[in-house]
Amino acid sequence: MRNKRSSSFSSAAESLFSSSLLILLCFHGTLVCSKYIKYNTDASIVEGKLNVHLVPHSHDDVGWLKTIDQYYVGANNTIQGACVENVLDSVVMSLQRDPNRKFVFAEMAFFHRWWVEQSPEIQEQVRNLVDSGQLEFVNGGWCMHDEAAPHYIDMIDQTSLGHRFIKQEFNKTPRVGWQIDPFGHSAIQAYLLGVEVGFDSIHFARIDYQDRAKRKVDKSLEVVWRGSKTFGSSSQIFANAFPVHYSAPNTFNFEVNNENLIPLQDDPLLFDTNIKQRVEDFVNDAINQANVTRTNHIMWTMGDDFQYQYAESWFKQMDKLIHYVNLDGRVNALYSTPSIYTDAKNAANQTWPLKTDDYFPYADGPNSYWTGYYTSRPAFKRYVRSLSGYYLAARQLEFLAGKRSTKGSNTFDLGDALGVAQHHDAVSGTAQQHVTKDYAKRLAIGASKAEEATSSSLACLSGKKSSGNCSAPASAFSQCQLLNISYCPQTEDNIPEAKSLVVVLYNPLGWNRTEIVRIPVNDDNLVVKDPSGNIIETQYVDTDNVTKNLRSFYVEAYLGVKPKEAPKYSLLFQVSVPPLGWSTYFISKASGTGNGKKTSPFLSQLNNQKGDTVTIGPGDLQMSSSSTSGQLKRIFNSKIGVDIPVQQSYLWYASSEGSSSDNQASGAYIFRPTESPPTIVSRSVPYKVIRGPLVDEIHQEFSSWIYQVIRLYKDKDHAEVEYTIGPIPTDDGVGKEVITQITANMATNKEFYTDSNGRDFLKRVRDYREDWPLQVTQPVAGNYYPLNLGIYIKDQKSELSVLVDRATGGASIRDGEVELMLHRRILHDDGRGVGEALDEIDCAKNYGCKGLTVRGNYYIGIHKLGSGSRWRRTTGQEIYSPLLMAFTYESLENWTSSHVTKGTILEPNYSLPPNVVLLTLEELNGGSVLLRLAHLYEPSEDAEYSTLAKVELKKLFARKQIKELKEMSLSANQEKSEIKKMNWNVEGEIHGQEPKPLRGGLVNTSNFVVELGPMEIRTFLLKF
Amino acid sequence: MRNKRSSSFSSAAESLFSSSLLILLCFHGTLVCSKYIKYNTDASIVEGKLNVHLVPHSHDDVGWLKTIDQYYVGANNTIQGACVENVLDSVVMSLQRDPNRKFVFAEMAFFHRWWVEQSPEIQEQVRNLVDSGQLEFVNGGWCMHDEAAPHYIDMIDQTSLGHRFIKQEFNKTPRVGWQIDPFGHSAIQAYLLGVEVGFDSIHFARIDYQDRAKRKVDKSLEVVWRGSKTFGSSSQIFANAFPVHYSAPNTFNFEVNNENLIPLQDDPLLFDTNIKQRVEDFVNDAINQANVTRTNHIMWTMGDDFQYQYAESWFKQMDKLIHYVNLDGRVNALYSTPSIYTDAKNAANQTWPLKTDDYFPYADGPNSYWTGYYTSRPAFKRYVRSLSGYYLAARQLEFLAGKRSTKGSNTFDLGDALGVAQHHDAVSGTAQQHVTKDYAKRLAIGASKAEEATSSSLACLSGKKSSGNCSAPASAFSQCQLLNISYCPQTEDNIPEAKSLVVVLYNPLGWNRTEIVRIPVNDDNLVVKDPSGNIIETQYVDTDNVTKNLRSFYVEAYLGVKPKEAPKYSLLFQVSVPPLGWSTYFISKASGTGNGKKTSPFLSQLNNQKGDTVTIGPGDLQMSSSSTSGQLKRIFNSKIGVDIPVQQSYLWYASSEGSSSDNQASGAYIFRPTESPPTIVSRSVPYKVIRGPLVDEIHQEFSSWIYQVIRLYKDKDHAEVEYTIGPIPTDDGVGKEVITQITANMATNKEFYTDSNGRDFLKRVRDYREDWPLQVTQPVAGNYYPLNLGIYIKDQKSELSVLVDRATGGASIRDGEVELMLHRRILHDDGRGVGEALDEIDCAKNYGCKGLTVRGNYYIGIHKLGSGSRWRRTTGQEIYSPLLMAFTYESLENWTSSHVTKGTILEPNYSLPPNVVLLTLEELNGGSVLLRLAHLYEPSEDAEYSTLAKVELKKLFARKQIKELKEMSLSANQEKSEIKKMNWNVEGEIHGQEPKPLRGGLVNTSNFVVELGPMEIRTFLLKF
Repeated sequence: MRNKRSSSFSSAAESLFSSSLLILLCFHGTLVCSKYIKYNTDASIVEGKLNVHLVPHSHDDVGWLKTIDQYYVGANNTIQGACVENVLDSVVMSLQRDPNRKFVFAEMAFFHRWWVEQSPEIQEQVRNLVDSGQLEFVNGGWCMHDEAAPHYIDMIDQTSLGHRFIKQEFNKTPRVGWQIDPFGHSAIQAYLLGVEVGFDSIHFARIDYQDRAKRKVDKSLEVVWRGSKTFGSSSQIFANAFPVHYSAPNTFNFEVNNENLIPLQDDPLLFDTNIKQRVEDFVNDAINQANVTRTNHIMWTMGDDFQYQYAESWFKQMDKLIHYVNLDGRVNALYSTPSIYTDAKNAANQTWPLKTDDYFPYADGPNSYWTGYYTSRPAFKRYVRSLSGYYLAARQLEFLAGKRSTKGSNTFDLGDALGVAQHHDAVSGTAQQHVTKDYAKRLAIGASKAEEATSSSLACLSGKKSSGNCSAPASAFSQCQLLNISYCPQTEDNIPEAKSLVVVLYNPLGWNRTEIVRIPVNDDNLVVKDPSGNIIETQYVDTDNVTKNLRSFYVEAYLGVKPKEAPKYSLLFQVSVPPLGWSTYFISKASGTGNGKKTSPFLSQLNNQKGDTVTIGPGDLQMSSSSTSGQLKRIFNSKIGVDIPVQQSYLWYASSEGSSSDNQASGAYIFRPTESPPTIVSRSVPYKVIRGPLVDEIHQEFSSWIYQVIRLYKDKDHAEVEYTIGPIPTDDGVGKEVITQITANMATNKEFYTDSNGRDFLKRVRDYREDWPLQVTQPVAGNYYPLNLGIYIKDQKSELSVLVDRATGGASIRDGEVELMLHRRILHDDGRGVGEALDEIDCAKNYGCKGLTVRGNYYIGIHKLGSGSRWRRTTGQEIYSPLLMAFTYESLENWTSSHVTKGTILEPNYSLPPNVVLLTLEELNGGSVLLRLAHLYEPSEDAEYSTLAKVELKKLFARKQIKELKEMSLSANQEKSEIKKMNWNVEGEIHGQEPKPLRGGLVNTSNFVVELGPMEIRTFLLKF
Repeated sequence: MRNKRSSSFSSAAESLFSSSLLILLCFHGTLVCSKYIKYNTDASIVEGKLNVHLVPHSHDDVGWLKTIDQYYVGANNTIQGACVENVLDSVVMSLQRDPNRKFVFAEMAFFHRWWVEQSPEIQEQVRNLVDSGQLEFVNGGWCMHDEAAPHYIDMIDQTSLGHRFIKQEFNKTPRVGWQIDPFGHSAIQAYLLGVEVGFDSIHFARIDYQDRAKRKVDKSLEVVWRGSKTFGSSSQIFANAFPVHYSAPNTFNFEVNNENLIPLQDDPLLFDTNIKQRVEDFVNDAINQANVTRTNHIMWTMGDDFQYQYAESWFKQMDKLIHYVNLDGRVNALYSTPSIYTDAKNAANQTWPLKTDDYFPYADGPNSYWTGYYTSRPAFKRYVRSLSGYYLAARQLEFLAGKRSTKGSNTFDLGDALGVAQHHDAVSGTAQQHVTKDYAKRLAIGASKAEEATSSSLACLSGKKSSGNCSAPASAFSQCQLLNISYCPQTEDNIPEAKSLVVVLYNPLGWNRTEIVRIPVNDDNLVVKDPSGNIIETQYVDTDNVTKNLRSFYVEAYLGVKPKEAPKYSLLFQVSVPPLGWSTYFISKASGTGNGKKTSPFLSQLNNQKGDTVTIGPGDLQMSSSSTSGQLKRIFNSKIGVDIPVQQSYLWYASSEGSSSDNQASGAYIFRPTESPPTIVSRSVPYKVIRGPLVDEIHQEFSSWIYQVIRLYKDKDHAEVEYTIGPIPTDDGVGKEVITQITANMATNKEFYTDSNGRDFLKRVRDYREDWPLQVTQPVAGNYYPLNLGIYIKDQKSELSVLVDRATGGASIRDGEVELMLHRRILHDDGRGVGEALDEIDCAKNYGCKGLTVRGNYYIGIHKLGSGSRWRRTTGQEIYSPLLMAFTYESLENWTSSHVTKGTILEPNYSLPPNVVLLTLEELNGGSVLLRLAHLYEPSEDAEYSTLAKVELKKLFARKQIKELKEMSLSANQEKSEIKKMNWNVEGEIHGQEPKPLRGGLVNTSNFVVELGPMEIRTFLLKF
């Protein structure tokens, strides 16, 4: 009982020592006399006692200081002595030595590597360990994903990959979220990657230090967490924030060769027996933890980073601990798992505090806000995001053409690489440089295989078939991953005389889509024909010098080849592609100079305007800039009647190297600016304006290392801002964290809205936390939040929204202001383990080495109050899922005779409702098809779209017959109906009185109509 | 074949890689596809190929930087990450995973700790592993003993202890000497602890760097070693000196978390596959070693200090190595043991170089002679030696009284502690200070238990019994272990009026013995009576101040008590004790002051002599010193007509801190003096002379920290020199290594003689090595040799011999000179791992801390050429086995009525021949008795004694009846007749033509007479 705290070492333990004397007696003068002790480890929960749940675990980063493979095989130990193969080998051996021992393992990317190398005998043994509950998979995703930088689709995909593996090999469904290390915790994690995948609880170590301090006092480290405003109590999870960290308490780390290991010594014939002291230490530590914990159950995370290199070193000591602590009897120690712990918590009939929203931002000290990593390694973050969208499209195509058609090539490796990349030291930008390169290499290999697969699929899909099956594709498509630096060998080349450059575009969205595409060309005398053979309007834009320089350097740096001279132009034309369908465009040489077809003249206007302002915009949205300073002044849309004075500029925070009072430096994890305000890069910006029928552009040179192009497209009501930042100069010895500030004349009352992993928007209030009275120590860094979709502010009349193309840190530091941190180059390490300064440098043979230049886009939209959501949701989806373009050469005639130039798998004229998106369409091995549909809107976001949506699967799969449909959990590892939900009592709440959210009903298998309530995601396994 | 060296990675290996591709293919897009490879590890020897014998081993020091227990349980890992429990646990698990895997283990002090803690199931598994040869015990002693500092009796005892354990638990007899780490190798090790315990081979890493260089050129690292001049080829062993060290080659260390571990990577789905490179590295390393090795067999010692913390980390990689190297096919890799290796070497029908003598001194660099450790920690070395003799006596008494009589107390713990203390970092003086204290503590505990046992036994043995059995002893004897500093509470006290101080003396030698004993008393009016009650002559000597100070400080420092005032006198009287028997003396107060019985007046003569010299010596041997300088000038024995001018002095070498050309410092291992000649402590020595009927003494004060007493006893023909050295001053910042030099006017032609572990004498020649042309770099340190018995020089006429009381470094740096290094205090570490300066400091509550003072004896004898041996052998044995004294109070009448005052177990008037000594007489568990008899003389040492000796066991065990007698190997783990000897061909020798040594014949079981040829040791198991 916890009240008995002062009682000292008990008589039970004393009698134990006397029994040892018996052993001693038998030894006098005898060479061999057994001192074997069978430790009693079969303790289970004891009611009425403080139960200490020992949860053996190893936290194995899927890459960090070493690459995932180096960690797995135990190479590169000079960096870190760590070998996951040892962990798994030795844990299995140790678990077999005592059926009471338990172990939890999380990272399937590692477990998978190990599993496929095992003999059938070992596999059988492991299956038995899993069946008996000795070995439990927690989380069970491919990695322990970050919660700030990944997109929710990536989180779902990587979790599903791991869960599929576990289901397939062990027929198990993980019950526990085990996000022990990520640097803050998202709402999406709680309700989507928690509840919707079937977890009963989630466990983590890192929450704000002020938050933790208060929760310890309140005994509110453990809460009922409702991450979703929409679903409320119907999507709540038991969340356990650890009182210290995910290590074992103080003196109870038993890693092999650990310097501080204090073995339990009970052999009376050896010196230094210490059982009494060790039991005392155990009981004290347990009582201290019990003092900040509700119920008679506390959890000890018995492990640490890459520990259990030799598992027996841990289990041997824990066996003794359990034996002697329970002999002592003051507390009850047992081998446990987070599932067992959760069950015990649930059974305790306790009420729990309620927690809503999320646990961002995370700080572990007054000047240690982990908000730098929201932006760290922005180029890598973009690479991950772009391949995430590509992976979604590629799997669709793989399914549409049939997996067998892609012989040899596949999307698995890309899924594997993306799964790895979601790790909390991968896309987070907090791995070492060599490890980040390894992630990129894996992605590149995966992308290259997926590109083969999509090219095959696309050829097969668009080809006219004799039978229903697609044969080996004849056409060799090429795709261009480096269009952002105008590199695309196939389109740059001269188009052969009798042929066209055939451009096939695939639209992974469920809606018809009209967009303007840009293709690098060297000829300004081209003709573009649409799928019906009609000539369409084009526009040429000169390739600017900044892009040319980027192209030379990075093609050589990343591809290792010296590119030809840069293409002279970008060719622009508008395309229209049906939902989940394709359209084909044909580019050919005009049949003579100055021929009448050349309807789109090349236009370039330099900044020769004389008036006060220069205004661009071929459509409704227009932007005015000062013609003298070149700076943005105003955005307006006369059609909807919104007009906002807006300034936009680039600035940088000087990275702190540590101050006299606190040596915390800014680094890969932590954003700590010096106390000076950010430095404005330029107040006067040379600019150039380009106008045309399809796009107006303003090119602005903020400095030698910041270049910006704002593009306003015909038929689009937003501004696309392309920034090119870098190399960030550091010759002044100062690290710099570069932001863009958009300052509107809006009274926003400290409030702004940021997304949670690209899905829900959460209200943020500057210098404020819902859960505790915030002591503001870092007025900038402490107000940064992770963005994956975007950020918006609003006043009484309007909304100003900014969408991003990758994970980005964002804030609103002053009312009316929005800022994005776009790039960081820092000269010091921030002391959180990575041991390197975040100073990304690339080298090219002919250009030497220089700091990383980052190019990206963000998108600005202005709307009337209450109507921005439709733009944010739709455009957000388009940014995530761009059109997939593939190129080949063929004569128009040959092509059209053998191909369908425009098509879709949907029933003609059917498209998904505008509030629904297809998250996953994937053919699994064994023939079933995974389908995930998501409603895009929160309940009151949009008057029209925040309603029940319906998807008619028969029309979606018009060419196929649905034989079977099963609704599944989010990760598709169990039928939705099998998920058992636990009841949790929330403080001050009467159970059952919470409002019921709107959700779609069961799918009727006669009409196969899927209903989706606001924010609902439904997952199905189909058979055709 | 070794000739194929240049062939590159073979086609077999290439095909291996293609087969991997098959695996790869099955993986495309598949979540799980087995990549399991069953490695082929069942390689055995392949004729005609280079066979690389991989010998997995862990070198586990029985104490060094941590104590033996800390090493065993894995405590104190801040000092060194090492846990032997992990090694054994994990090796057993790994061996069970593949029956081809093998492992050798050496240190039974560790294995025993582990074994007794195991469950019956694990014990059964381990028995199977031992039976199948997977787990082989090598060496199999309690520790891997040092070869310079231990006495051969200790080496035998500690080896027997381990071998007995192995025999008892596994019914195995180790076949291999595995002395991989000791710092040089002794002749005794080769022939006695090698051949005579039944080893076929011995393996070690450390030989002189010049020697090794030459042997690599000659391919003579492996030799046939004949360590005994006496036994020659009949006692030869195959000796394998490793070409580098006992570590695994360069890049093949696979210890868990090892920074340089390069895992073999064969998974084509992971990056960094490296099989081709690793096979290439293996083959190259193998060929390099083959180039310095005879035959097609080389051994790789796959392990290092305390490695195999997680054995699977090694075995997993070795499995792959064997698999892929053998697929490659250029060389053949196999799991092996030194036994298998030795068999292969033997089968190769090769001739081998001959090696005689020993491998001392050892140097691993020009200024790195490991000759300091011959003396390091002289007090500890003495403690070990004195308890070694005590252990011999105690086991005799335990046997004589019957083991059952000593209820509770025993000699096992002392044997255990002594076994541990023989370790090559224990008695060697090269362990850390805290570890050395731990050794001493173990010895003290063991000694205390053995003292109880001897007291009981002695009481029982001397008591008059009603039946043949001894009942519980009535008398409580006390013994005094600190007589060398005049501390003995029982004798210091007032003798109660009606009682006597009863002194029982036990003689562990097989000869009658007459000696003068010294007992601290406070009364100079005592009467001493012999066993028959006759009053005998006594002498009193004042307790000198140096002794008084030592006594105050060390009793407090070591016993933790403040002693009473020092006793005023030493009482001397002559005792006579029969062989293996006891005598009782009675000390009582004289019956009144000035009574006539006071025959031995107290005499003290100060240095008031007027003449040129002062001469002392109550008997034949006399010594003259200068009456002005106080220094010795001459030793002479008129009876035998030897008269040698001799000087004797103390000097110190300044310890080098490293020189500009070589930063090697002098330290615990290494003796490196600066280049200056040693500093003479004093040329003028105040002195004091004491004369009496039993002893003459000259006390000389060389300095405040060197005090010397020379004693010449009545009836003894040698001088006993007692030195008291310390604290060595280091306030000048200079480490000092203190020697005594005895310089005689003798032409010794660079030659001197030192013993091998206290047994054979080997001729040493200054600046010369038999096996290679010595390049002299250290003219002093390179000529030091270990002494355990003593050192002598001779010229045409005389011999000058010095015997020591402990392991000591000694040399003859100039002709006619002998020097002993007696104490070392050094301020730097010598870089061989111990990481501490050898700066021994003791602290006492009332005196603070100060450098260690060492007190000891050496003995000088002068003889005619050819006749010194008899003195050396007999006196040496007396030094090793002093009389055991026990005290109690009783009235003479009571005592004599209940006790036999003088007796022996031998037949009356029988004693062992003067050339035979009893090495062991021990009652084993189960009732058999272990008897070891040793001939003390080499063949031509003494005209009379170097002959066949006979021991009549019936007379030795006069009170018992011998039922059974089996002659055993030296360690008594197999019958002598079962030992199979291998034949080895020696270069340039025709087999079978070697002279046959003289050995005793089979014991006739009717008369039980044991014959012993010169130097022969015979071991028997008896049943009575």
